Amino acid sequence: MNQRTVFFVSDQTGITAETLGRSLLTQFESVKFRQVTLPFINTVDKAREAVRKINLTAQVEGRRPVVFSTLVQEDLLAILKESEGLYLDFIDTFLSPLEREFGIKSTHTSGRAHGAADSPMYAARIEAINFTLASDDGLNTQNYDNADVILVGISRTGKTPTCLYLALQYGIYAANYPLIEEELESGNLPGPVQGYTDKLYALTIDPERLRQIRHERRPNSKYSSIQQVTYELREAEKLFKKHGLVFTNTTHSSIEEIASHVLSEQSIERRVH
Amino acid sequence: MNQRTVFFVSDQTGITAETLGRSLLTQFESVKFRQVTLPFINTVDKAREAVRKINLTAQVEGRRPVVFSTLVQEDLLAILKESEGLYLDFIDTFLSPLEREFGIKSTHTSGRAHGAADSPMYAARIEAINFTLASDDGLNTQNYDNADVILVGISRTGKTPTCLYLALQYGIYAANYPLIEEELESGNLPGPVQGYTDKLYALTIDPERLRQIRHERRPNSKYSSIQQVTYELREAEKLFKKHGLVFTNTTHSSIEEIASHVLSEQSIERRVH
Repeated sequence: MNQRTVFFVSDQTGITAETLGRSLLTQFESVKFRQVTLPFINTVDKAREAVRKINLTAQVEGRRPVVFSTLVQEDLLAILKESEGLYLDFIDTFLSPLEREFGIKSTHTSGRAHGAADSPMYAARIEAINFTLASDDGLNTQNYDNADVILVGISRTGKTPTCLYLALQYGIYAANYPLIEEELESGNLPGPVQGYTDKLYALTIDPERLRQIRHERRPNSKYSSIQQVTYELREAEKLFKKHGLVFTNTTHSSIEEIASHVLSEQSIERRVH
Repeated sequence: MNQRTVFFVSDQTGITAETLGRSLLTQFESVKFRQVTLPFINTVDKAREAVRKINLTAQVEGRRPVVFSTLVQEDLLAILKESEGLYLDFIDTFLSPLEREFGIKSTHTSGRAHGAADSPMYAARIEAINFTLASDDGLNTQNYDNADVILVGISRTGKTPTCLYLALQYGIYAANYPLIEEELESGNLPGPVQGYTDKLYALTIDPERLRQIRHERRPNSKYSSIQQVTYELREAEKLFKKHGLVFTNTTHSSIEEIASHVLSEQSIERRVH
């Protein structure tokens, strides 16, 4: 099998280089990639050390590694471009067309993609995280007036991770309310979420997948039996349809995808970018 | 002021397009950007609808918007390229050099950058989130054998959001233990974290910033007084130094940056990418 080493080089965290780099790598399924992130390359010395690592890899492996870079400072760029790797520049490549379009020069200074602790954006994220932690799993339903969204679903359909992602990435006030058997049987929405139907977004999942997830937590229990999960899922979906709730099946979705569906289908404004 | 509309177009969540796109926009500080994400553009009809939105914006604003795209399907790409926006292609631009380098054609199918709910990567993230939630704020210290890292610091220095980010993004088992006044005064590491010094990573922050953060939670209290925060921070840093803990000041850092420092300085292996 084809195996290659890939470096993500950044003067900051490397998250941007990793995000686009990995999207590109998914296009080459037959190649196995060893991935190395070199973050905080923000001095000439660190840039030279990065080049040494890249060149050593080229030597040891007998073929050049791929270098995905988001460096912007021109002196650091110049050093990295001299490495023996295949240098692909995620920022510089697009700056020229943007400079022409906007009619101004770019700053070529290290960009701050995320809000620092002394910025309003950071404070907004922290507030959202606090709200979301306090509103996990049906807690503090008296705060629902302040929620941007309330996820509902039976146990282990992905509510908590989705809420945490919405809070961390987008500053969304995301509560979640678990549906238990008694509530499913009543055919009514549970008391605490009544009056908030506009904020409700429901999650469901395939029975076999839910059986597996529950089995890992409580093996061979009624909770994880295929009869029980099939029953709960059928009743939950009946409830969602009866009350006109938007819902999505999470079986083949990542946390990011579920969060994106919630944002776009509920038309929620992000508090942070 | 120069104002421009920017579209992020993707056949998936749009996260990759947004991440690189925003990094590019930080290079043009004098321009104000209106940002619109068009996720899940995965059919010809949706692609045409996206073009309609872009062209309408061009017409209304009297100048063309910028389009950052991560589309990979060639029929959809072809449609988007015909829009009136400045089309910048984050994937296609780099596929040709990578194809030449690897000596194979890329699949040009929609890439899955994140682990779906039926993948081992998803399960690893969920397990990490469960561990991290259960180990927040000094809870369940008996689980520290399983922790990848234990963040320590006084109240409101960024421990919880950093732990959640580490768990969500990288599948790291991240616990956190808050240092209270009695523990600071003793000069010893608190009992529950003794024996885990290799896993400890400490957070500190500037006194004035901490005063503000605490003031928002408990205005005009001893807890948020400048005397108290200055005292706690000085004692905490003394403790970190005495016991040789690695620590970072979070004042000017984003959650992403703190998490990257923890990963690289503690040499923690990510469980998911």
